[in-house]
Amino acid sequence: MKEKIKAVVIGGSGFTGIELIKILNLHKYTKVKIVTSRKYKDVRVSEAFSSYTDHTSDILTFTEEAGKDELKDINVVFLCLPPLKSMQYIKENLLKYDGVIIDIGSDFRINDPDDFHMWYGSEHILKGMLPDFVYGITEINKQKIKKCKYIANPGCYPTSVILSLAPVLASSNFDIESINVDAKSGVSGAGRKLEMDYLFCNVDNNFFAYAVEAHRHIGEIEQEVSKIAGKKMKVCFTPHLLPINRGIFTSIYCKLEHKDNLADEVEKAYKAYEEFYKDSFFVQFQGKKIPQLKDVIGTNICQIGIYFDKRTDTLKIFSAIDNLLKGAAGQAVQNMNVVFGFDEREGLIFNGLFS
Amino acid sequence: MKEKIKAVVIGGSGFTGIELIKILNLHKYTKVKIVTSRKYKDVRVSEAFSSYTDHTSDILTFTEEAGKDELKDINVVFLCLPPLKSMQYIKENLLKYDGVIIDIGSDFRINDPDDFHMWYGSEHILKGMLPDFVYGITEINKQKIKKCKYIANPGCYPTSVILSLAPVLASSNFDIESINVDAKSGVSGAGRKLEMDYLFCNVDNNFFAYAVEAHRHIGEIEQEVSKIAGKKMKVCFTPHLLPINRGIFTSIYCKLEHKDNLADEVEKAYKAYEEFYKDSFFVQFQGKKIPQLKDVIGTNICQIGIYFDKRTDTLKIFSAIDNLLKGAAGQAVQNMNVVFGFDEREGLIFNGLFS
Amino acid sequence: MKEKIKAVVIGGSGFTGIELIKILNLHKYTKVKIVTSRKYKDVRVSEAFSSYTDHTSDILTFTEEAGKDELKDINVVFLCLPPLKSMQYIKENLLKYDGVIIDIGSDFRINDPDDFHMWYGSEHILKGMLPDFVYGITEINKQKIKKCKYIANPGCYPTSVILSLAPVLASSNFDIESINVDAKSGVSGAGRKLEMDYLFCNVDNNFFAYAVEAHRHIGEIEQEVSKIAGKKMKVCFTPHLLPINRGIFTSIYCKLEHKDNLADEVEKAYKAYEEFYKDSFFVQFQGKKIPQLKDVIGTNICQIGIYFDKRTDTLKIFSAIDNLLKGAAGQAVQNMNVVFGFDEREGLIFNGLFS
Amino acid sequence: MKEKIKAVVIGGSGFTGIELIKILNLHKYTKVKIVTSRKYKDVRVSEAFSSYTDHTSDILTFTEEAGKDELKDINVVFLCLPPLKSMQYIKENLLKYDGVIIDIGSDFRINDPDDFHMWYGSEHILKGMLPDFVYGITEINKQKIKKCKYIANPGCYPTSVILSLAPVLASSNFDIESINVDAKSGVSGAGRKLEMDYLFCNVDNNFFAYAVEAHRHIGEIEQEVSKIAGKKMKVCFTPHLLPINRGIFTSIYCKLEHKDNLADEVEKAYKAYEEFYKDSFFVQFQGKKIPQLKDVIGTNICQIGIYFDKRTDTLKIFSAIDNLLKGAAGQAVQNMNVVFGFDEREGLIFNGLFS
Repeated sequence: MKEKIKAVVIGGSGFTGIELIKILNLHKYTKVKIVTSRKYKDVRVSEAFSSYTDHTSDILTFTEEAGKDELKDINVVFLCLPPLKSMQYIKENLLKYDGVIIDIGSDFRINDPDDFHMWYGSEHILKGMLPDFVYGITEINKQKIKKCKYIANPGCYPTSVILSLAPVLASSNFDIESINVDAKSGVSGAGRKLEMDYLFCNVDNNFFAYAVEAHRHIGEIEQEVSKIAGKKMKVCFTPHLLPINRGIFTSIYCKLEHKDNLADEVEKAYKAYEEFYKDSFFVQFQGKKIPQLKDVIGTNICQIGIYFDKRTDTLKIFSAIDNLLKGAAGQAVQNMNVVFGFDEREGLIFNGLFS
Repeated sequence: MKEKIKAVVIGGSGFTGIELIKILNLHKYTKVKIVTSRKYKDVRVSEAFSSYTDHTSDILTFTEEAGKDELKDINVVFLCLPPLKSMQYIKENLLKYDGVIIDIGSDFRINDPDDFHMWYGSEHILKGMLPDFVYGITEINKQKIKKCKYIANPGCYPTSVILSLAPVLASSNFDIESINVDAKSGVSGAGRKLEMDYLFCNVDNNFFAYAVEAHRHIGEIEQEVSKIAGKKMKVCFTPHLLPINRGIFTSIYCKLEHKDNLADEVEKAYKAYEEFYKDSFFVQFQGKKIPQLKDVIGTNICQIGIYFDKRTDTLKIFSAIDNLLKGAAGQAVQNMNVVFGFDEREGLIFNGLFS
Repeated sequence: MKEKIKAVVIGGSGFTGIELIKILNLHKYTKVKIVTSRKYKDVRVSEAFSSYTDHTSDILTFTEEAGKDELKDINVVFLCLPPLKSMQYIKENLLKYDGVIIDIGSDFRINDPDDFHMWYGSEHILKGMLPDFVYGITEINKQKIKKCKYIANPGCYPTSVILSLAPVLASSNFDIESINVDAKSGVSGAGRKLEMDYLFCNVDNNFFAYAVEAHRHIGEIEQEVSKIAGKKMKVCFTPHLLPINRGIFTSIYCKLEHKDNLADEVEKAYKAYEEFYKDSFFVQFQGKKIPQLKDVIGTNICQIGIYFDKRTDTLKIFSAIDNLLKGAAGQAVQNMNVVFGFDEREGLIFNGLFS
Repeated sequence: MKEKIKAVVIGGSGFTGIELIKILNLHKYTKVKIVTSRKYKDVRVSEAFSSYTDHTSDILTFTEEAGKDELKDINVVFLCLPPLKSMQYIKENLLKYDGVIIDIGSDFRINDPDDFHMWYGSEHILKGMLPDFVYGITEINKQKIKKCKYIANPGCYPTSVILSLAPVLASSNFDIESINVDAKSGVSGAGRKLEMDYLFCNVDNNFFAYAVEAHRHIGEIEQEVSKIAGKKMKVCFTPHLLPINRGIFTSIYCKLEHKDNLADEVEKAYKAYEEFYKDSFFVQFQGKKIPQLKDVIGTNICQIGIYFDKRTDTLKIFSAIDNLLKGAAGQAVQNMNVVFGFDEREGLIFNGLFS
């Protein structure tokens, strides 16, 4: 039996943090040494969250903070912090740390410091480190992830959009005139925020679009799809709030340049998707079968279905993920598994709840 | 006190039927004489539906059928029947009837018999009557409705789409390259159908697209927006199922042809919307404020907000309606009010439930 | 056409306040002159709440405060304030006011100042006024309400419990050994509070009991059922939170003293219920038919069904109300109608949403 | 590595069946050989249920039926069949089978054939086998389960009620005058039935009591609590339908005979609960902390909290389980683990979804 790696979770009491702790708690090759939370300082995790049960004899308790000294022997640090806080934490505590960093926050996803400034309204304070981070969309960047130590874990919306678009962008058959993404997310995507907008009475029996002018995730999305397409792509992106707890359903409309044999080429596209994801356990391409949120909630799986609308020369792509798993904590652990050479699925095999 | 008009509801036990009965039950100038339902033959409406209360001394009871003889003195017949059933009912019972017919079903919405055949898979059996029906989207066709006796009440999705697009289509400033409609409907839109798909356990915690290849409402939508635009328009339309009871939220993306002064022109578009709906009580244009379903559920109101995305030259239009009211029974009564010269709002002033 | 009475709403931006404004906005004989809200000072009601539409030419705007001077010509003041705030407001502003006061808050429901202190943890500052208030459970105290100027509008839970128990308590046939109330309320019952407990993610897919040690409404309940029974009654009361917006469903279990002919007597009880509510438009006794929340949400109606369990000598009573209507703003207007001699139903005829 | 036991699931496409398959699919020591379903004959499980993924190289496909021949080498047969069908299946196929039978249906839970007839309205066709079945409420009957081959897996409501009451019934301190159970279940408890009552539009925004006259689970409940109490107990039981998918929340009210030192004795009761469940991994006694459904949905855990109401001499007991896991498939596997001597927790460690 090989020794377990030692993990630390910084910011463990948000939706993503607690989800991550639950996964690591059952991970065969990982031992959580420290979990921080200012709010729940010195409180047992199982007391703060009755949904959590310690499954080993170790009892996990929240620590207020963790600095350089506590991180000496740690193999992997997960950062579950709000925008601008990860870079600050790294600057203060991890500049000399030589283990793996997986930032589930958003500070190291944007490669270009100017773009970062544009989307986050602040100067990046560790510009020099930006090139050291690999964008952790596992299925696409796996080879890079294997060789890196710093991972910028993708946002929830970008995960669903990039996985959905990659095969068609990587294929050379299509002239895409425009990409339109209409995304719908459950409320946990906003984090555990005490705002009127997220009160039950404001969400239940309701549905609406938000951030219609610009959502920060657009930066990541355009950066990564442009890399895959090999050319600068613009994406029109509009998020909506679903009256459910978890899950992102994304509808993507690619307007294709009209050609006489377009329909034939699209038929080939199905094969492109199958080929692209044939070895990916967590991305299931279902052909023309449209995915449903209930089938992926509680799992690390992304399901994708596509349909070509001949009437309007539009390729419709639909995908479903659990925003807290494949869209956050699950993919973070998947990346950890890749980095450390564990089975990619370790700790990530869950049965969904809604059959 | 003027005499009340006499109304009949054919097919009164579906979601639309019962909603219509509730409205007419409280309408000052209307008296419901007959309500048919095979399922609830001879059952009091208040017994079949505990949510219904007779508000006058008359007690409403379902009748199995209503034919020519019963309809002699009737002033308005509402048809709440599935596709292909309205035309059959009219053929059998209403060819000599000289009152008003408001068909909430779909048989007389498509003007062209060939188009009808394409979308509904059957020959129209009353082709000669098609030109006699006015498409009852009240705010747009009010002048025609005033003068007609036969009204084809619009579908729920088409109502939300056509009202949302009319001002921009009627304006000559825009060269629209493509129109993409991503629509989301509550479950009651599917009718009171006993199908696995509509079981609570299949809808709750779920969300998905359906009819992605082609939804019958596309026929109506393209027909009517083409009329308004004065040219043939194609619309890419994709419906989705929301895990809520009532309401349609529609997100429409108009890709505009790029011009240097596009943004300025769009600013003018706001005025076009305001102008277009300034006298319409039931359509509320809210500028850049995005509508929310909770604000219109339980009302006959359509709320619209628009936003222009300069990055992608896309005009985003969002609208919210209650599918059973403005999208069905409410608009039917609104049309009745117009035809009979009543105050357009009579019987249709409701307070929504979710503030 | 008689002149409308002038109404003021103090505290108009909570769930009850906005519901009350919506009702008064459409009430034939009432004109809202002032609505106060600190939060929305000088904001139009329709802007603060998009679900609200001004239905007359008057445009309603929130005022920060309303004191003695503004209340001179007012006929009725509704107080929608948190515990301890109504008595403070009255002390400061209404001691010389000679119109009608309807307190939807809880300060004047408890007759005995010591009981008030026990349940609310504070000294009552207007003890002398307590006897001037009538407990406004309309169906039971109508004769008193007709003659009074000050009304203590009942709490939501007490409304459902007292209406459910009145007929059996008023009947002399039963020896009730114990009364057990298991009540379930939608989230709006807690008011528009920004607390973690009421976040969507904490309520959706959840259900739990709360205030199991003691809920303040027990004071009202025991006081009023004791009056009706003519003897001191204890009630075991346990509230639960339903993952829905509106509605209270109450299950009441009366353990009856065993007698050989108990079942026969219970059969008579059905008649007692029918008799008790035969003239009450808003309380519908349904015999053995169990009420459902969906049938009363959005209405001012209380539906009651009862069943006698011979195996355990237990009378089961079930009732359903909308907590914001019959449980708050609706009953307040019903009381106003009674006080001013209007038709009791004026402004309170709504069609529920969920059929 | 020891050889896996071979399992068969009869009736695999209901809510319980698919949940059981998902668990067994990941169970270290079990291999599913056959899963039957008439509806999905020859369809892959992963095709019929997109929420299911084969986690080993074996691909599971539904078989129409499984008879004697197919069951020869099987170690455990799970029956997920409606009332009256399990005994029929056993009679036809399992009389000579010498492996383990775990009946998740209801045919072998009632010990007395007359009681069975009373509750199920039919003669039991295998009366002679009734004594061979152990009632599989694991925490209470573990010693018996270890030694038996036939297990009658408890109903969902009985599981929650019996676990909640066992410590107080087993204690000799209390004179319980009456037990009143007010239980609330998610919709999946009714099975995957195509009935109007379970349509989304009938359940959402709704709540009601049902089977108020008598629910079949009362038979099991009274039988087992009487065994634990050592005397005949009557239980007043009333189930309600929650507008959620999964979960049972049970509120139990034990009216205690009044004694002067009752409160002190109740304090001792907390210790009795702690003691009773101190070695039970899946039953978590939380003292006065009231459980919440969200904390157990998706787990095999039962959480219990109790509170003594001195005002009314009532002990309030609250418990929460997932009806499909601890209330059905989870407990079935827990029982299998006990019978075969596996770690009781094998295959049953899940992270809940809603934190």
